[in-house]
Amino acid sequence: MQSRENKTKNVKIAYIGGGSRGWAWALMKDLALAKSISGEVSLYDIDYEAAQNNAYIGNLIYKQNPEMSKWEYKAEKTLEQALTGADFVVISILPGTFKEMESDVHTPEKYGIYQSVGDTVGPGGIIRALRTVPMFETIAKAIRDVCPDAWVINYTNPMTICVRTLYRVFPQIKAFGCCHEVFSTQDFLCYVIEKQTGIQGITRKDITTNVMGINHFTWLDKAYYGTADIMPLYREFVENQQLGGIEDIRSIGPRDLVFESMDMVKMDLFRRTGVIAAAGDRHLAEFTPINWYMRDPEQVTSWGYGLTPVSWRFKNLEERMETSRKLLSGEETLQISPSGEEGVNQMCAILGLGDMLTNVNLPNQGQIPNLPLGAVVETNAVFSNNTVQPVMAGALPDSIYALVAPVVAEQEMIVEAALNRDLELAFEAFMRDAHMPLPMKEARELFDTMVANTKEYLPGYKI
Amino acid sequence: MQSRENKTKNVKIAYIGGGSRGWAWALMKDLALAKSISGEVSLYDIDYEAAQNNAYIGNLIYKQNPEMSKWEYKAEKTLEQALTGADFVVISILPGTFKEMESDVHTPEKYGIYQSVGDTVGPGGIIRALRTVPMFETIAKAIRDVCPDAWVINYTNPMTICVRTLYRVFPQIKAFGCCHEVFSTQDFLCYVIEKQTGIQGITRKDITTNVMGINHFTWLDKAYYGTADIMPLYREFVENQQLGGIEDIRSIGPRDLVFESMDMVKMDLFRRTGVIAAAGDRHLAEFTPINWYMRDPEQVTSWGYGLTPVSWRFKNLEERMETSRKLLSGEETLQISPSGEEGVNQMCAILGLGDMLTNVNLPNQGQIPNLPLGAVVETNAVFSNNTVQPVMAGALPDSIYALVAPVVAEQEMIVEAALNRDLELAFEAFMRDAHMPLPMKEARELFDTMVANTKEYLPGYKI
Amino acid sequence: MQSRENKTKNVKIAYIGGGSRGWAWALMKDLALAKSISGEVSLYDIDYEAAQNNAYIGNLIYKQNPEMSKWEYKAEKTLEQALTGADFVVISILPGTFKEMESDVHTPEKYGIYQSVGDTVGPGGIIRALRTVPMFETIAKAIRDVCPDAWVINYTNPMTICVRTLYRVFPQIKAFGCCHEVFSTQDFLCYVIEKQTGIQGITRKDITTNVMGINHFTWLDKAYYGTADIMPLYREFVENQQLGGIEDIRSIGPRDLVFESMDMVKMDLFRRTGVIAAAGDRHLAEFTPINWYMRDPEQVTSWGYGLTPVSWRFKNLEERMETSRKLLSGEETLQISPSGEEGVNQMCAILGLGDMLTNVNLPNQGQIPNLPLGAVVETNAVFSNNTVQPVMAGALPDSIYALVAPVVAEQEMIVEAALNRDLELAFEAFMRDAHMPLPMKEARELFDTMVANTKEYLPGYKI
Amino acid sequence: MQSRENKTKNVKIAYIGGGSRGWAWALMKDLALAKSISGEVSLYDIDYEAAQNNAYIGNLIYKQNPEMSKWEYKAEKTLEQALTGADFVVISILPGTFKEMESDVHTPEKYGIYQSVGDTVGPGGIIRALRTVPMFETIAKAIRDVCPDAWVINYTNPMTICVRTLYRVFPQIKAFGCCHEVFSTQDFLCYVIEKQTGIQGITRKDITTNVMGINHFTWLDKAYYGTADIMPLYREFVENQQLGGIEDIRSIGPRDLVFESMDMVKMDLFRRTGVIAAAGDRHLAEFTPINWYMRDPEQVTSWGYGLTPVSWRFKNLEERMETSRKLLSGEETLQISPSGEEGVNQMCAILGLGDMLTNVNLPNQGQIPNLPLGAVVETNAVFSNNTVQPVMAGALPDSIYALVAPVVAEQEMIVEAALNRDLELAFEAFMRDAHMPLPMKEARELFDTMVANTKEYLPGYKI
Repeated sequence: MQSRENKTKNVKIAYIGGGSRGWAWALMKDLALAKSISGEVSLYDIDYEAAQNNAYIGNLIYKQNPEMSKWEYKAEKTLEQALTGADFVVISILPGTFKEMESDVHTPEKYGIYQSVGDTVGPGGIIRALRTVPMFETIAKAIRDVCPDAWVINYTNPMTICVRTLYRVFPQIKAFGCCHEVFSTQDFLCYVIEKQTGIQGITRKDITTNVMGINHFTWLDKAYYGTADIMPLYREFVENQQLGGIEDIRSIGPRDLVFESMDMVKMDLFRRTGVIAAAGDRHLAEFTPINWYMRDPEQVTSWGYGLTPVSWRFKNLEERMETSRKLLSGEETLQISPSGEEGVNQMCAILGLGDMLTNVNLPNQGQIPNLPLGAVVETNAVFSNNTVQPVMAGALPDSIYALVAPVVAEQEMIVEAALNRDLELAFEAFMRDAHMPLPMKEARELFDTMVANTKEYLPGYKI
Repeated sequence: MQSRENKTKNVKIAYIGGGSRGWAWALMKDLALAKSISGEVSLYDIDYEAAQNNAYIGNLIYKQNPEMSKWEYKAEKTLEQALTGADFVVISILPGTFKEMESDVHTPEKYGIYQSVGDTVGPGGIIRALRTVPMFETIAKAIRDVCPDAWVINYTNPMTICVRTLYRVFPQIKAFGCCHEVFSTQDFLCYVIEKQTGIQGITRKDITTNVMGINHFTWLDKAYYGTADIMPLYREFVENQQLGGIEDIRSIGPRDLVFESMDMVKMDLFRRTGVIAAAGDRHLAEFTPINWYMRDPEQVTSWGYGLTPVSWRFKNLEERMETSRKLLSGEETLQISPSGEEGVNQMCAILGLGDMLTNVNLPNQGQIPNLPLGAVVETNAVFSNNTVQPVMAGALPDSIYALVAPVVAEQEMIVEAALNRDLELAFEAFMRDAHMPLPMKEARELFDTMVANTKEYLPGYKI
Repeated sequence: MQSRENKTKNVKIAYIGGGSRGWAWALMKDLALAKSISGEVSLYDIDYEAAQNNAYIGNLIYKQNPEMSKWEYKAEKTLEQALTGADFVVISILPGTFKEMESDVHTPEKYGIYQSVGDTVGPGGIIRALRTVPMFETIAKAIRDVCPDAWVINYTNPMTICVRTLYRVFPQIKAFGCCHEVFSTQDFLCYVIEKQTGIQGITRKDITTNVMGINHFTWLDKAYYGTADIMPLYREFVENQQLGGIEDIRSIGPRDLVFESMDMVKMDLFRRTGVIAAAGDRHLAEFTPINWYMRDPEQVTSWGYGLTPVSWRFKNLEERMETSRKLLSGEETLQISPSGEEGVNQMCAILGLGDMLTNVNLPNQGQIPNLPLGAVVETNAVFSNNTVQPVMAGALPDSIYALVAPVVAEQEMIVEAALNRDLELAFEAFMRDAHMPLPMKEARELFDTMVANTKEYLPGYKI
Repeated sequence: MQSRENKTKNVKIAYIGGGSRGWAWALMKDLALAKSISGEVSLYDIDYEAAQNNAYIGNLIYKQNPEMSKWEYKAEKTLEQALTGADFVVISILPGTFKEMESDVHTPEKYGIYQSVGDTVGPGGIIRALRTVPMFETIAKAIRDVCPDAWVINYTNPMTICVRTLYRVFPQIKAFGCCHEVFSTQDFLCYVIEKQTGIQGITRKDITTNVMGINHFTWLDKAYYGTADIMPLYREFVENQQLGGIEDIRSIGPRDLVFESMDMVKMDLFRRTGVIAAAGDRHLAEFTPINWYMRDPEQVTSWGYGLTPVSWRFKNLEERMETSRKLLSGEETLQISPSGEEGVNQMCAILGLGDMLTNVNLPNQGQIPNLPLGAVVETNAVFSNNTVQPVMAGALPDSIYALVAPVVAEQEMIVEAALNRDLELAFEAFMRDAHMPLPMKEARELFDTMVANTKEYLPGYKI
């Protein structure tokens, strides 16, 4: 047993998808700011050059900020090399390219099916899952063989399916999935408190919420500030909005409707269920019956959110590649500020540097007693010395259970289908998705087209 | 302890809804044919005269058929009198009148929502439930107070909600719910065996099916004849139909599409899920997403089933009243043949006259481990000396769970709402029903209208 | 799919342990009496000659009784040959020889620990389990490879551990375990009814009991004759015995205390728990705290039961071998009468020749919700076309749960230990057994001696 | 909604048993040291004078230490007055007097049954429970009626039974039970780390343990310091002790064997189960089979712990009363230092002043999936804004389950018995306790004597 001092000075992180122009830099910043730990980061990416570039950019940080934590970045050519000796593995990959995502999101439009994100559920989410599961199979096996004791943090979507695959392939894995969607809803609650009471300066760290559900379709059935109950305030706020209509909501301020929303879906779901939906409206609307919020683009607009076109992602990627170029050439330097993600804090807690309570995605051991055991669910969990343990969230209220339970079953079917490269079972899931209004024949046509469009990333399937 | 001989000669049955012109006569016939038991039947009905008429008709049977079992029929003026001393209580009532049912079924048509039955789920089923629960509350309390040890057999719809209410109000009640929908599907399987193999003469008693799900949305995941598996035969049969199209299905013979169907929905659900749906298509189609089979009357027709108009029920009632008149006047006599129902056999088994295995509706004690405990589910059960015990059905397969679980939650919400006379919670359930495509404002308008139309039978609700 | 007629005329049974002089003959008789089925029986035994002798004896039956069902018996030299084509596999073996059993039962006596049977729990049962599990591993693998669809009926002890091993090794196996101990208690209840009410002629087939617990430590929490409750009669009976003392119990008649008992343990357990213990006293007393009924031979005698010495088994075996000799030489012929076992009836039910309800040992799928899932429990089950499905027995009452739950855990530990050939874990179980009063040092000495005594049958263990 | 500032300046605590000379002073000190909160404390005690004295002593603290938190103490004459307006209720009472406890602990000695504590399980614990449950019924009803939203912290033994009673009587109560036994074991682990590795200065706050089981029979199946596993170190340590024997253990230093122990029981239980027992040896030994550690006083001594005689408690009380006198007269002043209890920290966390993870006793919602739901179990829980939520502890390993499950059932029986004032059911539990080796007749004699001895505190029982 090493003393803690020694241990936290030699932390080894393997980053799968380490060539990213976005998440990678966010992680680098948070690591630089984490005073109590230092060590090395292996970057692995199928685009090795991108990983090399990020290693260069990462190593600049300490040179430029020697008062910060020291981390050494290194690109690795193989997954196995990257994983060797890892204490933590971070997975943040794009499954396929934006070309595949373009098919996922926009092919269904030809059949009148619109998608706001298309990476989690719905036709796009399902096809994306079919190509993601084999990748996560490979990763899980490599972790099992190379660094079975490492803690694994996944950021890739479809989150639930990625984490479930890791555990299906290597049941002893110490993996969890992180997503910041709940954080924004907690921020929104703070805004609501301020609006309704005038109390200022409350941040999401000051409140406690009971998180339950699944990733991107997560719910809060209890919320407290001190011993005061936030739910009645939220109800009041929502009722006022109902009266005031969209104008009043707009008073929250202008938003970029490509990625943000007016929170109208979230509030409508509260009216329907009495529980706070805790994800962005673009995600929430993909889980509910298609005619509620996404029948057509007009209905989408009327609910104050937007459909994110993949063209936007292409354009955004170009900007990020330009930034990368500038960082490499020295025209620009990374501004070191906290990313808002909690991954590095979680690592610190696991290393024994202070307990932490936050929401994560983990297999259900009973923390949500009325969802199937083993399915991946999102609840609060305690992070502490080598420990990530879910908190009992309790049973989903009936109104939420009715919405969430079918999606859990659908995602279980998809993982099963993808692990067995079974397109027929995948199509069964596709057919029953809440956003599949087509009769079987057209649905099959669409499914086959989407599969064909992305077949380059569907190894082992009989296509 | 009496010897069995004594006991089975003095069986006392209380029949709630005993003025019926249909079910009552069916029960009378089965009782007359039940050689091992005899006794008396108390008929209770809010229409006392109807009960008196049935008592008269019932007492004619033994007079006309002295070789059959002797049963004495008696009309009672109060529920309590009817229940006094009962060994068995049969509940088969119409909650409200066909006027209320007309509102249930046809009011939603003004909003483009069509219903094939409208007595279980959907807008009609929910409003019907709101008036049924208070009636079952009254009945459950009377049983608790007057004959707590009696066995209670319910035939009333919405079945799940009726049985759940009995147990919510009097948890020690010995109640179960019976429905013959599964029987027809078992008959259909026998037909399939004959078609596919040429083996003739198989009846539903010769096969064993694993029954799982909820009433009117019940499923068979296993089916055997001897040790032979029926599932591959069924798959073959369904695939052939798919190829041959509706003409081939028609070869099954002409059917009265008001009440019967071409089983096309049933077979489509098999294609979608790999599990045999075990209820009439008119019921099945009310549980699945509205756009699958019931978007509009044309889609209904194209799936080979019909929408039962309440006018048909009015007309049918007239015919049955005419029959009643003739039976009373002696112009006609009841033909004593088995009804196809199993209620009397179940009574015999409970009295110790031979074990029996059949499907019934009971609170979930774990017989379907992935549905909520306490919710009423339909599975096989063993009937034996004073015993009705569910058989372990096992977890619903994911494809079925995704369809059934939300309905279970919806029905739990409705029972909760109705017991508390809480229209807001009832509206929450109404909004999330699979057959509610309307936005909240129109949905509320429809809900309020339907409630107002039937308010005479909604005691205690704030309307 | 074959017609039923064809199927039931060519039933193939594989009998593992088919050289037995006892069970084998019982099965032969029941098969001869089973009018609806016929076919062949492969006898496999590690003593091939014994199997050959039994084949000869078996084939004599039809020759001597041509009016009975025709079965052809054949000895096979390998397990695989015997299993080929089997519809049913019967397992009834002696794990090791009586020499090993002698060590199991009598070695602990040197440390003051007495055992009445020594084949299920206690020091003897645990050591026996260690040599039985590897044998059942071999059998399970052979069934998996040769006849995975066959139904497997186990009669071997320790029952729970044998059945659990089959499922651990081959989870898809269709196996169950049968034991007649519950039947005797049901007979005893009929005797009680007669004594308390004077009603005569009731047999165990006329009553219904809810069976719950584990093999040899099984319980009845409900018992009915018609709708009449047997429990109050049993309570009365037990209370009278308490008053009358042992003299009155003796009035039940003289019993062979080597194998039978005065049912005093059974009745004392009713006083302690309010639930009917449903196994022979010799078994029951091995599960309860050692000081309750088995502190020393005097206490055993005072409770009206006996310790079965292995010398008795040796002697009994000699007699049975003599019978075998006479049957082979023709000096004696098998008298064909029902054995009282239900195995052949169960086969008939599985073949579709009539449903049946009886108690068997099966993995817990939730039929006893407060025992661990997967652990083998004994409850009622429905036998029907290719179906053996447990009936929901319900949660064990607290007073029974407190006694049964620790044994379930102990047996789970033993199976785990034996599958991993892990003597340390086995010793953990040995130490916590209810009949292990020794401190750790002496316990270890005893354990090591017992292991050494039987090491010939402990392959793969580090001894 | 008040701002947090306002809320934490007016905290109202009701202390039931507030006349205590021990716990009360400990709480007063911790409150004085809690900088972020202040308010008032109502002291209620059946000895009103004692409460008044403590109020006087409590109010002295702020006078003498004006730099500390200000708390106003007040004695109340009725429970209802004390509870009025309470944010927190602390329950720490002696059920009965030491005279009753003398009967609990020493009456069984006449039958050869020795007890080390006698307040949780065993004959003494059971009789104590019978008089405690009615007191907690009264308290639960008063909380329900007067301050239903208050948080309730129980310190009274038998802990499990007290907390269970609170929830049985008032299911919506926000109650939990606190006990410091686990803390000492965590301290012991720090000592083990130091011994085995030389690393110094680790405190129990630096390590993370997974707590599971029930109060006073609690277990740790995982323990980490940073990411390093403490279990192998503990195993090593225990093995060395085994070799070195009691002398080496004594090197831990001299201990007062009336209250402390040599931890030999704890280590023996690790050898038997592979899991760390986390309570004092005096408690642990009361739960395990009587012949393991408590057959007679000699065996107790040989295991390095002591039997605490009630005479010692009488003497100790006298000393504490003398201290009380001196505090009142001013001869002595309370030294303000932390008590080591966590109650005040928990209150702060609940008030929103910082999250906290610690072990508490709560009804099982599934945090230990293989123990009965509703039974009170001890696990870690998260304390946060108005939130005490158990952490998923996971299933008890088989070796622990076998020991703990029967005690859970026994305690469920006792609560049921006491709530119904049912001495027969209580005697059933008494008979099956691990420390009841007597035959039924002597056991009943002992039970009746103990009940008679304490009948003054057994209201409503038929004695």
